[in-house]
Amino acid sequence: MNPPVAIVMGSQSDWETMKNAADILDILEVDYDARIVSAHRTPDRMYDFARGARGEGFQVIIAGAGGAAHLPGMLAALTPLPVFGVPVQSRALSGQDSLLSIVQMPAGIPVGTLAIGKAGAVNAALLAAAVLALADPDLAGRLDDYRARQSASIAEYPIDKDE
Amino acid sequence: MNPPVAIVMGSQSDWETMKNAADILDILEVDYDARIVSAHRTPDRMYDFARGARGEGFQVIIAGAGGAAHLPGMLAALTPLPVFGVPVQSRALSGQDSLLSIVQMPAGIPVGTLAIGKAGAVNAALLAAAVLALADPDLAGRLDDYRARQSASIAEYPIDKDE
Amino acid sequence: MNPPVAIVMGSQSDWETMKNAADILDILEVDYDARIVSAHRTPDRMYDFARGARGEGFQVIIAGAGGAAHLPGMLAALTPLPVFGVPVQSRALSGQDSLLSIVQMPAGIPVGTLAIGKAGAVNAALLAAAVLALADPDLAGRLDDYRARQSASIAEYPIDKDE
Amino acid sequence: MNPPVAIVMGSQSDWETMKNAADILDILEVDYDARIVSAHRTPDRMYDFARGARGEGFQVIIAGAGGAAHLPGMLAALTPLPVFGVPVQSRALSGQDSLLSIVQMPAGIPVGTLAIGKAGAVNAALLAAAVLALADPDLAGRLDDYRARQSASIAEYPIDKDE
Amino acid sequence: MNPPVAIVMGSQSDWETMKNAADILDILEVDYDARIVSAHRTPDRMYDFARGARGEGFQVIIAGAGGAAHLPGMLAALTPLPVFGVPVQSRALSGQDSLLSIVQMPAGIPVGTLAIGKAGAVNAALLAAAVLALADPDLAGRLDDYRARQSASIAEYPIDKDE
Amino acid sequence: MNPPVAIVMGSQSDWETMKNAADILDILEVDYDARIVSAHRTPDRMYDFARGARGEGFQVIIAGAGGAAHLPGMLAALTPLPVFGVPVQSRALSGQDSLLSIVQMPAGIPVGTLAIGKAGAVNAALLAAAVLALADPDLAGRLDDYRARQSASIAEYPIDKDE
Amino acid sequence: MNPPVAIVMGSQSDWETMKNAADILDILEVDYDARIVSAHRTPDRMYDFARGARGEGFQVIIAGAGGAAHLPGMLAALTPLPVFGVPVQSRALSGQDSLLSIVQMPAGIPVGTLAIGKAGAVNAALLAAAVLALADPDLAGRLDDYRARQSASIAEYPIDKDE
Amino acid sequence: MNPPVAIVMGSQSDWETMKNAADILDILEVDYDARIVSAHRTPDRMYDFARGARGEGFQVIIAGAGGAAHLPGMLAALTPLPVFGVPVQSRALSGQDSLLSIVQMPAGIPVGTLAIGKAGAVNAALLAAAVLALADPDLAGRLDDYRARQSASIAEYPIDKDE
Repeated sequence: MNPPVAIVMGSQSDWETMKNAADILDILEVDYDARIVSAHRTPDRMYDFARGARGEGFQVIIAGAGGAAHLPGMLAALTPLPVFGVPVQSRALSGQDSLLSIVQMPAGIPVGTLAIGKAGAVNAALLAAAVLALADPDLAGRLDDYRARQSASIAEYPIDKDE
Repeated sequence: MNPPVAIVMGSQSDWETMKNAADILDILEVDYDARIVSAHRTPDRMYDFARGARGEGFQVIIAGAGGAAHLPGMLAALTPLPVFGVPVQSRALSGQDSLLSIVQMPAGIPVGTLAIGKAGAVNAALLAAAVLALADPDLAGRLDDYRARQSASIAEYPIDKDE
Repeated sequence: MNPPVAIVMGSQSDWETMKNAADILDILEVDYDARIVSAHRTPDRMYDFARGARGEGFQVIIAGAGGAAHLPGMLAALTPLPVFGVPVQSRALSGQDSLLSIVQMPAGIPVGTLAIGKAGAVNAALLAAAVLALADPDLAGRLDDYRARQSASIAEYPIDKDE
Repeated sequence: MNPPVAIVMGSQSDWETMKNAADILDILEVDYDARIVSAHRTPDRMYDFARGARGEGFQVIIAGAGGAAHLPGMLAALTPLPVFGVPVQSRALSGQDSLLSIVQMPAGIPVGTLAIGKAGAVNAALLAAAVLALADPDLAGRLDDYRARQSASIAEYPIDKDE
Repeated sequence: MNPPVAIVMGSQSDWETMKNAADILDILEVDYDARIVSAHRTPDRMYDFARGARGEGFQVIIAGAGGAAHLPGMLAALTPLPVFGVPVQSRALSGQDSLLSIVQMPAGIPVGTLAIGKAGAVNAALLAAAVLALADPDLAGRLDDYRARQSASIAEYPIDKDE
Repeated sequence: MNPPVAIVMGSQSDWETMKNAADILDILEVDYDARIVSAHRTPDRMYDFARGARGEGFQVIIAGAGGAAHLPGMLAALTPLPVFGVPVQSRALSGQDSLLSIVQMPAGIPVGTLAIGKAGAVNAALLAAAVLALADPDLAGRLDDYRARQSASIAEYPIDKDE
Repeated sequence: MNPPVAIVMGSQSDWETMKNAADILDILEVDYDARIVSAHRTPDRMYDFARGARGEGFQVIIAGAGGAAHLPGMLAALTPLPVFGVPVQSRALSGQDSLLSIVQMPAGIPVGTLAIGKAGAVNAALLAAAVLALADPDLAGRLDDYRARQSASIAEYPIDKDE
Repeated sequence: MNPPVAIVMGSQSDWETMKNAADILDILEVDYDARIVSAHRTPDRMYDFARGARGEGFQVIIAGAGGAAHLPGMLAALTPLPVFGVPVQSRALSGQDSLLSIVQMPAGIPVGTLAIGKAGAVNAALLAAAVLALADPDLAGRLDDYRARQSASIAEYPIDKDE
């Protein structure tokens, strides 16, 4: 059976961003599958993936894309699973196009959208974990620990690194 | 015990937008609690609500706010539950400020952000239902039906309403 | 056999914009078919339409959509026919989201994008006619006449309508 | 007689972007002519080129320009041929000025606009080829092959290039 | 001989904005000619007007246009006279497209750009007058008076108009 | 007792910006305390700091944060002291998100917002000093001197540094 | 002697926004003087007001302006008193121009900027009061009461006003 | 007596941009004076310069500034001479703040605004020359020559510089 999380992205170049989601899932011990699925260049692959995702055991989909980013929204149109979208930072418009193309979905087909770039990929993984943790107390505990460690790691006073 | 979904908003005026989330949850037979919690004007109420949300049985939080919209992000900082944010359309900047204030969260604290305004409220409810449906086959069935009815409701040809 | 132009749109509400394309094609005596095809709410209908479009005799596709407008780009992914996209003016962001979602396509899948709103619909029809006119001298003549009449219709001096 | 496609640009510095259109046309075996025609600094050359384009055998015009990019729209005003515009990425505003100056044409004079920068140049060439392929089955076949190769070239799994 | 100022605009609908320029010139007793010259729909008229403007005695050109506003820049390309551009407020983008299309001219062809809408039209007339006043002491005096009256007309305390 | 000014920031990385505020306070001989307080990752620390700030003797708070910057607004919600916010320049959106998240506060909870980045940090310190100077004639004198030296330091003629 | 707060604005039309500042100061029993001072149309009045403000007893200046809003920044250049700026919502750009013209001050001359429009005017008054309260325990108490009443006024549950 | 053109700028760092205006005036043999005049840090110098500019023989003022760029508008408020503004590219917002702060002047006080950055400085000089050429046939001739050389310098075909 498939792992609970699918990380899909529109192109190889998106992996630099999306592997930050994979790293977080590794830390939280959540299995995932990472795939390249281009809405525009491999629309059949996208249809097959999305239509089969629930049956194959996926529970949450994390989708990253840039520019006129149609992948997250099209996946959400094709599967009832929760889809979380990561706007990849684009060259000319710095991800403003990616963000609007993902977040401004019409009523009826939701995509839970995260921040542009690396922070968004990290947070998509944390949000997927929070969803899965609703039915997995062990994961909930690991997520609590992660958040506690994160809080504890923030120093109280800034360090002047130039000195 | 509390219902699984909390719909919280920064002010009474946000209810015009957020009741669209409530309407969808009604259709899908998902219980919810709707509350006004202002991050800025009732920070203690926000703190108490968020810190107690998991213990009181909430599973998903839908939070709507406008302008410098801090409510969704602060709730996500204070509870490990999944938080979905709805940018309410603001007067001067049409919700561009609301959107950026909600979606651009730093790595570590995720908010799954939906579209500005009514469509975002509808979709936050659908996304919350999709999350709850992972552990509730009956709800999954109702959500499938809703999506199927939605598809079937789209006419094939446009009607010229002026004629 | 089908007419040479398909006008497709994401929802009934887009017809108010897109019928301006139909009106121009009527003037130029170019046949067309107008259909509602939602990328998000009727993805199967979209897939079937796009995959079959060339075989059914369509030559040019005009596609209008608003918000996270994925219809033009997905049609272009699924058919080798020329696709011209019309960003419909959206409520919160006035069509800036529609424009970026349509025009910022990645290398490999083109959408020729027109202006936001009514002007874009008019121009999509004129551009489709210009394309068809390459192989249809009669249409080329009608298009030349249209353009000449348009030039001649511009008065030389402004009229003060308040007087 | 002239080749079917003209690639025109506002300055030598636009060639770095626009040669990506030329490369695609080379791959698809579509002849073209590449010229520098500045709407602002060589307006007479622009008038002569545009007024003569159809008579000299051109069928499609690809025009790239940056900043207050007037070249695509002025060509479209001066010739009935289809004009496809490429917004060149500008220094201060990253091509947002180029995009709006090209795409927001008034009703009556269409410019089919592509993405900002290199992707837009690639896609302008693909769109020009799609238009010419309507009357050229061999080109249609080459374009189909190009699209099939493009789909096939997308790997299924991302590669971690740092490793 | 022609009056010193030409007010040109892209369409009849721009007159509502541009007549504010005419009103100021009336007050300052500066003669002008107001014409509709569309860069896109009447390019030949534009060419003839611009090429002949200096010879016919015009000294300053005020040009208003909206959307992908090419008129001011094209006039500046075709005449060495000073050209002042007024971005007319557009429907979808509120004149942001008009502004960028006019102000972001490449090095070599200047357009002195004023504010979007009515204020811009008023100011284009005042700027034209300031230019002509350099060689016309009487006009300089009238302009000084206008500015003095303007300063004197500003009340010292706000009036609560609701009371 | 605490110094009169607290400089707080959301993360260590903000210190590069915020130390410019510290440098100005050093020059003006105003004591301050610099702390890292993350609204999102250390919400309890934020609550404790803000709730105790007035009692501990702070008089003015300078808060810097980037992206969905909630720190200044949440501090203002939790303390009646004047809060001045510094939008830290963010990666993807260059601080536009930081600015709107800080400045667009709803009626009732003010944050006096300065410019994005280093200039904003410098000015937050100068504004804090101006506030404290209202009750401290010595500081008012030092601030007057600072401003006078600043004016005097502006050369009258530019120097061509390339020569 | 003058009251502690000056509310200045660029034109009579700004009073509709700025009287919200006056209303708050009335509630908090803080005296103020409201004046029209246009940076552009009454520069001498501005100069005289700003240069004399401290000597005449003003302690805090609230300045509202729209469009290319230079008033707050110029006052801050001419007086060492704290200046709080309110971006008035402009017609074409909804106050985005006002906001950037006020907040993006260069290092050396600070303006504490509030939100666009009415909320900004309310908050400028609250911030001025917070500044004055540092040396006025009675005002501090009234401000605490205002904030407590504000918190208490937020209902816990939204009311469906359509019913 | 002073030269006809003053080039003023807000800081030494603006000279890198503004010297492009000086270079053009050198080529056109138009005398100028270049000065640093900061609206914010040297307001008295600005008042003195602007109030005296006409009497000292200046005819046209070119003013460059960045960020909340108040210099061009304040000069226009203080002198009846034509003022041309150059938005200097700013760090965080790439000159969008500079542009809006300069161009969006209220009715009554005009600033003829050029493009952001170097192109704007070049064009401010060309526009100043066009204004002066109205009363100086020799300069008109030199400007015609400059424009003719500029047109002639544009090659007809792009050169592939990588080869």
